Amino acid sequence: MDAVPFRETVAIIGPGLIGGSVALALHRNCPASQLRIAGFHAAEIERARALQLAAVITDDPIDAARGADLVVLCTPPDVMPAIAQRIAPELAAGAVVTDVGSVKRWLVAELNAIFGSRYVGAHPMAGSERGGLEAARADLFEGAICFQIPGANADNNARVRAFWQSLGCEVAECAAAEHDEIVARVSHLPHVVAAALLTGAEHLAGDPLRFSGPGLRDTTRLASGPAELWTGILAHNRDAVGRALCDLRRELERVEALLAAGDDSGLRAFLDRAVHLRDRLPQKSQKSAHDAGGTGDFPRRKSP
Amino acid sequence: MDAVPFRETVAIIGPGLIGGSVALALHRNCPASQLRIAGFHAAEIERARALQLAAVITDDPIDAARGADLVVLCTPPDVMPAIAQRIAPELAAGAVVTDVGSVKRWLVAELNAIFGSRYVGAHPMAGSERGGLEAARADLFEGAICFQIPGANADNNARVRAFWQSLGCEVAECAAAEHDEIVARVSHLPHVVAAALLTGAEHLAGDPLRFSGPGLRDTTRLASGPAELWTGILAHNRDAVGRALCDLRRELERVEALLAAGDDSGLRAFLDRAVHLRDRLPQKSQKSAHDAGGTGDFPRRKSP
Repeated sequence: MDAVPFRETVAIIGPGLIGGSVALALHRNCPASQLRIAGFHAAEIERARALQLAAVITDDPIDAARGADLVVLCTPPDVMPAIAQRIAPELAAGAVVTDVGSVKRWLVAELNAIFGSRYVGAHPMAGSERGGLEAARADLFEGAICFQIPGANADNNARVRAFWQSLGCEVAECAAAEHDEIVARVSHLPHVVAAALLTGAEHLAGDPLRFSGPGLRDTTRLASGPAELWTGILAHNRDAVGRALCDLRRELERVEALLAAGDDSGLRAFLDRAVHLRDRLPQKSQKSAHDAGGTGDFPRRKSP
Repeated sequence: MDAVPFRETVAIIGPGLIGGSVALALHRNCPASQLRIAGFHAAEIERARALQLAAVITDDPIDAARGADLVVLCTPPDVMPAIAQRIAPELAAGAVVTDVGSVKRWLVAELNAIFGSRYVGAHPMAGSERGGLEAARADLFEGAICFQIPGANADNNARVRAFWQSLGCEVAECAAAEHDEIVARVSHLPHVVAAALLTGAEHLAGDPLRFSGPGLRDTTRLASGPAELWTGILAHNRDAVGRALCDLRRELERVEALLAAGDDSGLRAFLDRAVHLRDRLPQKSQKSAHDAGGTGDFPRRKSP
């Protein structure tokens, strides 16, 4: 996949869906890379050990980060700064840090203040409404876009880029504020809308939700994502999400006006345009996350 | 499946995704039932013939309807009244008519005026964004809710109910106006929202859609449905869809206010509620429509 296979020692802090998938993808794609994992829940640590996910599996992030060439913060964004404070003094000379946080403006400012140019922020656009290590998959990042927020050190930027590419990602560089605007539109807004389709319908006469079919189930899949994690994500991107919500309300008003005016050719043009735009959405070669299995068939380490 | 297997002669007018799936399900579940099919597109008729979908496959709905015990109108709702006018004088004594139209208030009034109590309106809550006979599946209706709008003749209501049950549906009786309010919330509104998430994002700086991941793709799946069909559906349910859109806008305003006020516990409560509601959505035992194959493995007729 890469000209030079990634062979650094990697510490994963937080082996949930994303951290666990980083571990599985490294095992599969980069057998020369060594892994150190820190978990925060006993069950998670136990499962990571049962899966033989890494040589070192600990409940202490300092333990995992020490001796790593690259540290990947995979916890919910809310707790990353506190963890960063703890591990920063213990990092090896030359170690770099990246993360998977879904908000970047707030987080990059926090982590830059702690790590300086050793930190290169990232956000792989992959996931599932099923959280936890048991939903992790070696191919989660295959063909996924990974945003990277370049730091001040070009060598570190290149190392972190090589890391995400080695997991199968297509890396797209952008500024933190630009990232937050984009994900507000393609990730945070759809999440809020999925949730609002459900909460908005629950108090109606006749309990319409009980008659729903596959359409509503797919449209609202995102709303099953962990509420605590998503509260933090939305709260740390509140301005951009607010703007996205306001824009969507205007678009819905426009459709209401078409309906009220009996403007069926306008309605048709709106629906035609949407069909066209959906055809153009990026297609990953793999099946989407909720169709596939979890870690059941791990380990699948390739021979070097 | 049923105490008395369905064994009437069935005419299917319009063998697209739904009509084709009715044919496949009848073949599989009711081998004693005879089939007559009328198509309106040469390619569709050719494919139905290649699949040996029925003894009679014609381009004339009168031909198909003559001699049938039960006629199922499976075209887009817009054209059903014109077809009904043509076949009504040719129906056998004792024949009943049902349909699959996604709007009922307007359509039931139209078809009642033509067929009287021989007509019993229905709407199976099953489908796929992939239209056409090539997407039809024998198990499309397995476990799906089918709304039935009872007519004036109890025997005819019972016969039509037995028909939909024999395809695997769970039949739910309701009034036409009630049906239209329910589907406005669980089907038409999600369709409009899916489309608006795309059209609302296309003019933004940086072309955010090009960075979307599996979340947006699933949330907008419905927006790939045929624009012409959906224009007719939305137009014939414009009042209820307008009310649903207005309610959703209010719900989104509520979330905007939570974000703007920094009320993260309110935000958390909103997201928690949505997780809970989605867990309670009806689950079909089968995989959802877009995960499964089409008619490739037809015919699978069981021996009687």
